[in-house]
Amino acid sequence: MLNLREEALELHRKKPGKITVQSKVAVTSREELSLAYTPGVAEPCKEIYRAPDLVYEYTTKGNLVAVVTDGSAVLGLGDIGPEAAMPVMEGKAILFKTFAGVDAFPLCLATKDIDTIVHTVKMLAPTFGGINLEDIAAPRCFAIEERLKAELDIPVFHDDQHGTAVVVAAALLNALRVVGKEMKDIKVVINGAGAAGIAISKLFLDMGVGDLVLCDSVGAIYAGREKGMNPYKEEIAHRTNSGRATTLTEALRGADAFIGVSVPWTVTREMVRTMAQDAIVFAMANPVPEIYPEEARAGGAKVIGTGRSDFPNQINNVLAFPGIFRGALDVRAREINERMKIAAAQAIASLISETELNPDYIIPDVFDCRVAPAIAAAVARAAVESGVARKHLSPEDVAQHTRELIE
Amino acid sequence: MLNLREEALELHRKKPGKITVQSKVAVTSREELSLAYTPGVAEPCKEIYRAPDLVYEYTTKGNLVAVVTDGSAVLGLGDIGPEAAMPVMEGKAILFKTFAGVDAFPLCLATKDIDTIVHTVKMLAPTFGGINLEDIAAPRCFAIEERLKAELDIPVFHDDQHGTAVVVAAALLNALRVVGKEMKDIKVVINGAGAAGIAISKLFLDMGVGDLVLCDSVGAIYAGREKGMNPYKEEIAHRTNSGRATTLTEALRGADAFIGVSVPWTVTREMVRTMAQDAIVFAMANPVPEIYPEEARAGGAKVIGTGRSDFPNQINNVLAFPGIFRGALDVRAREINERMKIAAAQAIASLISETELNPDYIIPDVFDCRVAPAIAAAVARAAVESGVARKHLSPEDVAQHTRELIE
Repeated sequence: MLNLREEALELHRKKPGKITVQSKVAVTSREELSLAYTPGVAEPCKEIYRAPDLVYEYTTKGNLVAVVTDGSAVLGLGDIGPEAAMPVMEGKAILFKTFAGVDAFPLCLATKDIDTIVHTVKMLAPTFGGINLEDIAAPRCFAIEERLKAELDIPVFHDDQHGTAVVVAAALLNALRVVGKEMKDIKVVINGAGAAGIAISKLFLDMGVGDLVLCDSVGAIYAGREKGMNPYKEEIAHRTNSGRATTLTEALRGADAFIGVSVPWTVTREMVRTMAQDAIVFAMANPVPEIYPEEARAGGAKVIGTGRSDFPNQINNVLAFPGIFRGALDVRAREINERMKIAAAQAIASLISETELNPDYIIPDVFDCRVAPAIAAAVARAAVESGVARKHLSPEDVAQHTRELIE
Repeated sequence: MLNLREEALELHRKKPGKITVQSKVAVTSREELSLAYTPGVAEPCKEIYRAPDLVYEYTTKGNLVAVVTDGSAVLGLGDIGPEAAMPVMEGKAILFKTFAGVDAFPLCLATKDIDTIVHTVKMLAPTFGGINLEDIAAPRCFAIEERLKAELDIPVFHDDQHGTAVVVAAALLNALRVVGKEMKDIKVVINGAGAAGIAISKLFLDMGVGDLVLCDSVGAIYAGREKGMNPYKEEIAHRTNSGRATTLTEALRGADAFIGVSVPWTVTREMVRTMAQDAIVFAMANPVPEIYPEEARAGGAKVIGTGRSDFPNQINNVLAFPGIFRGALDVRAREINERMKIAAAQAIASLISETELNPDYIIPDVFDCRVAPAIAAAVARAAVESGVARKHLSPEDVAQHTRELIE
């Protein structure tokens, strides 16, 4: 790790930083200056003043996403504050650009107050075509996203929640193809009731998972539990855990799938052994998973995924968020809704053909250049079909546009 | 103008917009991804958490300037709102980049409330190395800038005030060289008591102008005037207009210089005729000046400048703000103070040699590539000497850095 550490520090120190704001137009002569700036620039200003929607035609807004954080839940580092969060937010911005041609800009806020974050983002919204919330601790992240979604007419998306949920859903869809089970028939246990765990639970319920138990550090969550609850866990509690399990161990008995978005070493080989035949284990704590793949396999698991690139089936957000925003931006979606997320998950899953599919290959590689165009097209289609698109563009055109941007 | 209009609209529609956020590092392999994003990105995060000033070493913050507006006083268009202001702010961003290698990003705020703007910018500050306020109407712009300067430890600069003041000061310095007069001996009349007029008045007083009268649409401003005053005009009133002129016409009698930052047609040939010998007339209302150059010359003016590129002596903000921020950022200045502004004005003026200097050439061309390096070096030196620099870099190194960035 020493080498990684030194190399990473060197990379960040070199320029320094990872993003740059460039001009798309030349300003090398008086004529060019008079078109890009005064007096010519007054013309698009007047047009937008006349018809506000033209801001999408004459400015970068339609391709600009704010990557907003308060630095309260950065990677596994926790609450390190806005300045220390900046390298991650710049990193997110360059992934947006590299994988889907989205112009993303980091905004690290000097507050952790819900009202202040909501208000600040609302004040900033005129510049942006979308808001990506990032690394904001649960449960504040839920309230912030809910309120911003209600009050803004551009997509607001908390990637730690929904990006993760989409990629996990894609992996689950294909794992079920491998083991020959169906969503409605399976019991899923999710460990970790933070941003990711709550969002995965909701998405899975929307996708028709038959039985679900969400666990946190206290144990399994159920209606009426008193310790360590919050309104978001309560909501899940009322829709899940029909068997009223109280511990993770108990919940896992007979479960078809385990989804870990928690901490290292929370699952043992023996616990996996109590799961159903052909168990699915996604142990995504990073870098040390809830259970290592070889242990899970020894416990009888059939399909195993982690968050790491050095094991098969890396379940990585990078797969989802660039294409999701690409699709949403291309049709000027007012929001990113459940239907668009499910479409994204299905698009990712469907990239792996029946002949390629196997227990060690259920999810595309993050560098698979088919991913973003496929997601963008599916998300755009779902946006149009669910009535949140302000611009109609065919899925084929969206896919083609995405390919051109990332070439 | 039809052609300019169509060409300007086409330029803005093409991409669309004028800025793009690019990655400075490649992300084409697993290794590169693991350095620029997880897990490697955690290393600079931890370093910055340990020592917050390292944010300048490991992120783009040190070269990032927010171009903040509420869209309330955009060009000559007035209060057109944040969306319609976006083309101008993108334009400003590309000028920052083109002329001084500064990464500038537009933030168009959905509020005109002073407290809200101040609060929003404060919340955003962790991401940025500097704040450029833009096109915010007077007198709100004064309170906003004052409060942000007091509450932030990065440079806050309202370009409509200080960028204009610096360039006008540079032009005046050289005009005085042409006519052989000195700052302390002259009487200056400034017409227009908005952002620019107030800032020019203050800078001129700090530079030792002997006698000054500031006028607005009501007339000359003096201590005790009742109509159309505000605290900023009051402050100027108590330091100026010793002759207690009440009208612009009266003020101009015997004046050595007229500075127009007001509206078209406010000065006549006859008014210029009443000015002192070898009068200086800077008529910067745009596109139609307070008085056209040929009229001013017919009235006896010796040195004439406008805001237009089709007359000699274009007095244009583009000359100043890129280099000023470049110098301030390079030494991590806590603020942009009076001394730095005066240094910038002197640096611009001194680029024109005694042999080149003449009534039609008192100010460098906006494309003169010596301008930004010279300003940056002078501003950096002044920052160090006035004790607001957090990093010591020689003026020569700052000039060289600037040249490298704009090559």
